[in-house]
Amino acid sequence: KRTGVSEIIYGEGKNVEQIEHIIDDMFQHDQKEIFISRVSQEKANVLKNIFPKFTYNELSKTFYWKEDETLINSGKIVVVCAGTSDLPVAMEAVDIARFLGNDVDLISDVGVAGIHRLFSKLDQIRHANVLVVVAGMEGALASVIGGLVEAPIIAVPTSVGYGANFHGLSALLSMLNSCSNGVSVVNIDNGFGGGYMAHSINSLANKKSGIE
Amino acid sequence: KRTGVSEIIYGEGKNVEQIEHIIDDMFQHDQKEIFISRVSQEKANVLKNIFPKFTYNELSKTFYWKEDETLINSGKIVVVCAGTSDLPVAMEAVDIARFLGNDVDLISDVGVAGIHRLFSKLDQIRHANVLVVVAGMEGALASVIGGLVEAPIIAVPTSVGYGANFHGLSALLSMLNSCSNGVSVVNIDNGFGGGYMAHSINSLANKKSGIE
Amino acid sequence: KRTGVSEIIYGEGKNVEQIEHIIDDMFQHDQKEIFISRVSQEKANVLKNIFPKFTYNELSKTFYWKEDETLINSGKIVVVCAGTSDLPVAMEAVDIARFLGNDVDLISDVGVAGIHRLFSKLDQIRHANVLVVVAGMEGALASVIGGLVEAPIIAVPTSVGYGANFHGLSALLSMLNSCSNGVSVVNIDNGFGGGYMAHSINSLANKKSGIE
Amino acid sequence: KRTGVSEIIYGEGKNVEQIEHIIDDMFQHDQKEIFISRVSQEKANVLKNIFPKFTYNELSKTFYWKEDETLINSGKIVVVCAGTSDLPVAMEAVDIARFLGNDVDLISDVGVAGIHRLFSKLDQIRHANVLVVVAGMEGALASVIGGLVEAPIIAVPTSVGYGANFHGLSALLSMLNSCSNGVSVVNIDNGFGGGYMAHSINSLANKKSGIE
Amino acid sequence: KRTGVSEIIYGEGKNVEQIEHIIDDMFQHDQKEIFISRVSQEKANVLKNIFPKFTYNELSKTFYWKEDETLINSGKIVVVCAGTSDLPVAMEAVDIARFLGNDVDLISDVGVAGIHRLFSKLDQIRHANVLVVVAGMEGALASVIGGLVEAPIIAVPTSVGYGANFHGLSALLSMLNSCSNGVSVVNIDNGFGGGYMAHSINSLANKKSGIE
Amino acid sequence: KRTGVSEIIYGEGKNVEQIEHIIDDMFQHDQKEIFISRVSQEKANVLKNIFPKFTYNELSKTFYWKEDETLINSGKIVVVCAGTSDLPVAMEAVDIARFLGNDVDLISDVGVAGIHRLFSKLDQIRHANVLVVVAGMEGALASVIGGLVEAPIIAVPTSVGYGANFHGLSALLSMLNSCSNGVSVVNIDNGFGGGYMAHSINSLANKKSGIE
Amino acid sequence: KRTGVSEIIYGEGKNVEQIEHIIDDMFQHDQKEIFISRVSQEKANVLKNIFPKFTYNELSKTFYWKEDETLINSGKIVVVCAGTSDLPVAMEAVDIARFLGNDVDLISDVGVAGIHRLFSKLDQIRHANVLVVVAGMEGALASVIGGLVEAPIIAVPTSVGYGANFHGLSALLSMLNSCSNGVSVVNIDNGFGGGYMAHSINSLANKKSGIE
Amino acid sequence: KRTGVSEIIYGEGKNVEQIEHIIDDMFQHDQKEIFISRVSQEKANVLKNIFPKFTYNELSKTFYWKEDETLINSGKIVVVCAGTSDLPVAMEAVDIARFLGNDVDLISDVGVAGIHRLFSKLDQIRHANVLVVVAGMEGALASVIGGLVEAPIIAVPTSVGYGANFHGLSALLSMLNSCSNGVSVVNIDNGFGGGYMAHSINSLANKKSGIE
Ligand SMILES: Nc1ncnc2c1ncn2[C@@H]1O[C@H](COP(=O)(O)O)[C@@H](O)[C@H]1O
Ligand SMILES: Nc1ncnc2c1ncn2[C@@H]1O[C@H](COP(=O)(O)O)[C@@H](O)[C@H]1O
Ligand SMILES: Nc1ncnc2c1ncn2[C@@H]1O[C@H](COP(=O)(O)O)[C@@H](O)[C@H]1O
Ligand SMILES: Nc1ncnc2c1ncn2[C@@H]1O[C@H](COP(=O)(O)O)[C@@H](O)[C@H]1O
Ligand SMILES: [Mg+2]
Ligand SMILES: [Mg+2]
Ligand SMILES: [Mg+2]
Ligand SMILES: [Mg+2]
Ligand SMILES: [Mg+2]
Ligand SMILES: [Mg+2]
Ligand SMILES: [Mg+2]
Ligand SMILES: [Mg+2]
Repeated sequence: KRTGVSEIIYGEGKNVEQIEHIIDDMFQHDQKEIFISRVSQEKANVLKNIFPKFTYNELSKTFYWKEDETLINSGKIVVVCAGTSDLPVAMEAVDIARFLGNDVDLISDVGVAGIHRLFSKLDQIRHANVLVVVAGMEGALASVIGGLVEAPIIAVPTSVGYGANFHGLSALLSMLNSCSNGVSVVNIDNGFGGGYMAHSINSLANKKSGIE
Repeated sequence: KRTGVSEIIYGEGKNVEQIEHIIDDMFQHDQKEIFISRVSQEKANVLKNIFPKFTYNELSKTFYWKEDETLINSGKIVVVCAGTSDLPVAMEAVDIARFLGNDVDLISDVGVAGIHRLFSKLDQIRHANVLVVVAGMEGALASVIGGLVEAPIIAVPTSVGYGANFHGLSALLSMLNSCSNGVSVVNIDNGFGGGYMAHSINSLANKKSGIE
Repeated sequence: KRTGVSEIIYGEGKNVEQIEHIIDDMFQHDQKEIFISRVSQEKANVLKNIFPKFTYNELSKTFYWKEDETLINSGKIVVVCAGTSDLPVAMEAVDIARFLGNDVDLISDVGVAGIHRLFSKLDQIRHANVLVVVAGMEGALASVIGGLVEAPIIAVPTSVGYGANFHGLSALLSMLNSCSNGVSVVNIDNGFGGGYMAHSINSLANKKSGIE
Repeated sequence: KRTGVSEIIYGEGKNVEQIEHIIDDMFQHDQKEIFISRVSQEKANVLKNIFPKFTYNELSKTFYWKEDETLINSGKIVVVCAGTSDLPVAMEAVDIARFLGNDVDLISDVGVAGIHRLFSKLDQIRHANVLVVVAGMEGALASVIGGLVEAPIIAVPTSVGYGANFHGLSALLSMLNSCSNGVSVVNIDNGFGGGYMAHSINSLANKKSGIE
Repeated sequence: KRTGVSEIIYGEGKNVEQIEHIIDDMFQHDQKEIFISRVSQEKANVLKNIFPKFTYNELSKTFYWKEDETLINSGKIVVVCAGTSDLPVAMEAVDIARFLGNDVDLISDVGVAGIHRLFSKLDQIRHANVLVVVAGMEGALASVIGGLVEAPIIAVPTSVGYGANFHGLSALLSMLNSCSNGVSVVNIDNGFGGGYMAHSINSLANKKSGIE
Repeated sequence: KRTGVSEIIYGEGKNVEQIEHIIDDMFQHDQKEIFISRVSQEKANVLKNIFPKFTYNELSKTFYWKEDETLINSGKIVVVCAGTSDLPVAMEAVDIARFLGNDVDLISDVGVAGIHRLFSKLDQIRHANVLVVVAGMEGALASVIGGLVEAPIIAVPTSVGYGANFHGLSALLSMLNSCSNGVSVVNIDNGFGGGYMAHSINSLANKKSGIE
Repeated sequence: KRTGVSEIIYGEGKNVEQIEHIIDDMFQHDQKEIFISRVSQEKANVLKNIFPKFTYNELSKTFYWKEDETLINSGKIVVVCAGTSDLPVAMEAVDIARFLGNDVDLISDVGVAGIHRLFSKLDQIRHANVLVVVAGMEGALASVIGGLVEAPIIAVPTSVGYGANFHGLSALLSMLNSCSNGVSVVNIDNGFGGGYMAHSINSLANKKSGIE
Repeated sequence: KRTGVSEIIYGEGKNVEQIEHIIDDMFQHDQKEIFISRVSQEKANVLKNIFPKFTYNELSKTFYWKEDETLINSGKIVVVCAGTSDLPVAMEAVDIARFLGNDVDLISDVGVAGIHRLFSKLDQIRHANVLVVVAGMEGALASVIGGLVEAPIIAVPTSVGYGANFHGLSALLSMLNSCSNGVSVVNIDNGFGGGYMAHSINSLANKKSGIE
């Protein structure tokens, strides 16, 4: 896996030395794109000194570098998130989808409790090839958007909430039981998985439009 | 408990003989209003022959009689339900709220997957003193309506669904985690409880407008 | 949303800079009432220096300011709580309900294990327009009060307890399964939600008494 | 195990032939007291013909016979139950405690939603050596009685309820989290276990009063 | 909703009269394609007499008719299922995806316990535009295929199993925690949802290849 | 409540100032016996300086004082615990039962994995009036002892363990499902509750032996 | 898979025609040993007529035939079960282990509530190469035997019980949390899996004793 | 228990003094092999100074010493683990199995998302007497290997993951529901238990090859 063009690492539970070692190793294999998720601020402070050409996103905790930033896929991936507390997860989706070569929009603070804010973004939402919908608490946003668009939706439940939220169970179950068609779900707080799946779908759309 | 003006019985787990006995007893205490919830069609067939002046609602399984049907409270209670499968629970809310003397509207088939249908009823919804919102599956309807109105909302989760619905857990958790203000929740499938709570609130509004 | 008369912010997960920024922004929009829930003691120490006219409640962790403290609604909201450990949640209910213009009483230390203490407060409880009942552990208090009063009750389960309490699940399930009528439930530890719902109901009662 | 004075059999999952065989076998070992729990009405119809001296309790589904019905323990065991739906479980407790030689009272229909009914029985309740408190739904009765008496209480949660009752989980958790002292708990619907434990405690009290 | 070209109905909980009524109504609105899921064998027997041009799939319990069966999308959707017990769910996915105009292959009996059977189908699997992977028990199949292909995968957990399977929870959690990228999940036993999502993705691929 | 002979306080969540205040208040009401559970080492260090006549048990975290240490009840309460990790919970049971005037033995390190150690203590165990059995992990000890003695057993599950222990759920469910008769259960880690219930039973035995 | 010497089929969810077809197919492939688990009595009645040389075990619901019944492995597999209700699961373990060529003993009715019965079988238990321990309710038997023997133990939790047993969860968690070494666990009610694992271990012991 | 040849201690929850005391005590009983699991780095730093001949494994947190390191069993135990995050648990299995005298191989980073890596190790895997398979997230590895080998497999779920992993529940349920034969399971993160069970099986194989 660790040779080729783009390389993705799950940073959680790896210390600075291990991550440094992995990056060095990739450079030796002439890697041109490296993406590491879930790097804490403390680790990033050290790593940024060692690898100054990398970017660190403080919100999403991703640490990455890409020699050639040309888009690979055309068509928008739109990441929509309910509240500001869901932003770290949404941003992880944005980061990985962009890193993989997609054109990504982020729309935030459009939770269902103020549905007019969602409607004011409807054109942008309807324009998407694929949508990633990120929401915690009751996770209703995926169903509402699902009823408004034809595009495939990847729903990402977050652990934002407390009490009977049970660390994201509430949003997870909501999204799995969506009464809207064309909605599928990834793990709680798995912004990475949502962004990757959106990329996988968008790549198919691009490949097909090229070939057939 | 079994003397006074209106009397409410939980019919589940009581056989025809027990229900007959209770009603006879109430008549002897000069009861003028009797409401029995959760009476199966089979039991109702027998009871209807014995007490022909009672009404049986096949959908909600309620069996009741009221000598004087004059409204007691002014102002609307509006019961809103997501899908046709939620109707039995919604109707139980309608029945008890009407029985207790309220003016009740029922709006159905306005699930969030087709939100334009909900918006077409917005005037009627906004006119309500109190709302009872009944939904299964992801239970998102309570949050959406909660964001659109100022009136207090009683959310009733239903067990409609399958798989990761876990017999209504999904809608229950959604409603408890609603990001809209002014939403409180009763037990899964507890249409009765939702209707009763709405009546309790509406009575307060009426009492206050009369007294102070 | 952040223009108008009264503004409510969920402080959890927002840092001092963000909160300071939001408040400044509101002042610029001529906001006259600002309420921020779940502000930690540490954050409050800093914010209190910046905004000395605000009040910080150390128990409930709310931080608020209101230019005009005139009551808006008449009639009592009574917040009842079982034990002293439930006080932070109960006080959050008191704070928001008062902030929104209601006349609020707090009764505490009336858990069902010493029911005579509850009975000694019965007059005060029966005088309420709406009740907010806050309890952890077995959450029995809502059912007991529910059987003693006609007024609508908002039950707030707390996470007080340990072991088979499962972080408030025990009280939550108790309250959802209450055998008393006129009881509805909000999320575990959601004193804010309980107080807001009570305000919503009390406002209806006041509005109706004014209009009809 | 199946020789001696009194013999107890768990009837669930045993067919008529097996039960007949067990009883015959006991007669041969000169057993003078036989108690079989959870015998369905259908099985009982057949068994009653074969063993006419046995008693069948249609409510609790117990089938038993005792040559000598003299009380063995003095002092009351009082079984208290919340609603009529809890009666089958409560009656199982009554039956086994009586079978084991105790003087047992049954108080029913004293749920916490109508607490005055409970108070009207307080003398009888306070007179008990041991109490068995049987309740479903929110199971609050054990805590309320626990606060009113000094005697040890065995709490028996029942599966009566629906929805967020989760087959008795609600009452079970309530009782385990009771804020009253001197309350311990047996399995959901285990009237047998509650009655047996009460007997075990009452026997200790009697033995001690005889010996020391 | 019930006018247009293709119409989809959830048959569960609707009786024969209701379904007949809906179909008649659609005919009047000149509907040319009707799909009804979860129609039991008994109901289908009656409906087939009334609407002989409809097809009933005994395995998946779907009942449908389509005037013009021309494919709408090019490129394969491949539905893969682990064991024969998962076939009803897999077939529901096949039926809806075909009904919506896709070219669908079904591969079955390739569970991970005999991984050579899976490898013998690898060419067919790798040829897919989109995959729907249906599995019960430990649900490992989605992860294994996820590691072998680039195409997006919709994982459908089934309730096949017993004991610690907890009605599909085991496969659901497995699939949500997949360590393979490009896997998203729908509800337990929701073959319909899996097939629909695959169609939504395949339509995007086709639309893009047509337009851009 | 805070006047009389013996007084019991739940220390968890109370700070040093609150505890000091409560104790002072009790002294003013001429309290002769004070027991405070769950006082951390840090708080105890401070409190011990203020109230030097109090005893602090570092293992069980109880802080108490009793003017007159004469036994009130005769007959042994025996607290048995499975492993050394269960000792803090067991010791809490010992402390409260002794504080309330009982003669208490503690037997530890007799887990079922080395059943000969249990058998070597059988005489002491069989001599008890009441038993408190404290165990974590699989909680099997209560059932094994339950089969060996006639005396009533209070089973206290502990949260000792990890993984599928789920913070004591494993031992709790084991104990509730005990196949031995005469076993009832209190909350996870509730040594206090186990010791109190044992005292309640032992008091009954003593009272009866005195009176009748 | 369906060619070779011995063939194992999971009968659950297969109808008589499917099973008949599978067996015929095997005969054509010259199969000499066929084992079908979970065949209901009704299906067996029909199949026994078609394949009279097969044996049907009414307790374990297994249906099998083996041309050559010579033992393949030496050394005992001992299946131990707690109560008579656990016998169907235990017998499934016995059947498959015997079918696969092992010498199997069954010991039943040795639950921990009567531990002397277990001790009376200790010699036989200690003589085993491998043990399969089958228990429901609190599942304590695996831990107790685990402390008494050195041989590896496969623990099979059963769903026998009610209430807080939660369909076998109680015994499953107990066995996973066993404080005895050398205990591993299979699925609830999976007697087949327990017997197969024991065979796998016993085969290793036999193979090694032959080879090295 | 604390005399003999090899001694095993569970270090979790024991402080340095307690561990030092236990080791001293063992030395006095002439113990030649001591193994202590779950010793934190901090405690190990101190203990290593006191007992310099002990080895501390920083990954698995085991602390042990063995006078005579001769192998006791022939034949390989192979510990296989999915990802590097599972290594601490896998290493605990390796350590205990080696300590008990087995020849142990460790294979890591062969998760099912890259199944070719697993296949490249197949010879080594197939050569094992017993396998310990350690995996978190979806835990699919045990089923895949189970289908490839005849040897008995002990599956060890780990808590590696997040969200719907629920601290290892996901891998635990997967492994219990494995569709492969010859797989049994120990507690989440219980590397020790997996290694011990493998040793117990391997000892049987060795003992038999010696005796019979
Ligand atoms: N303690 C609380 N619990 C739940 N919701 C709250 C709480 N405090 C404030 N809110 C809600 O959160 C909303 C503000 O969220 P935000 O825009 O993130 O500040 C307010 O409108 C309130 O409805
Ligand atoms: N309803 C019941 N619930 C739980 N345990 C019971 C019940 N009835 C009888 N038992 C117990 O089951 C044991 C007999 O089981 P068995 O040998 O299967 O008949 C008796 O000793 C009782 O302890
Ligand atoms: N098997 C199924 N599972 C989940 N949703 C379904 C299924 N079949 C149909 N649906 C959805 O249910 C909607 C129709 O619901 P209804 O109006 O109740 O007939 C359709 O638009 C589909 O989205
Ligand atoms: N009672 C059982 N429980 C679990 N698995 C079983 C059982 N009986 C048979 N099996 C497994 O199911 C496989 C056959 O499944 P199938 O191809 O559906 O007949 C066999 O290889 C066995 O491993
Ligand atoms: Mg859509
Ligand atoms: Mg609102
Ligand atoms: Mg009331
Ligand atoms: Mg008491
Ligand atoms: Mg892939
Ligand atoms: Mg006993
Ligand atoms: Mg052992
Ligand atoms: Mg295998």
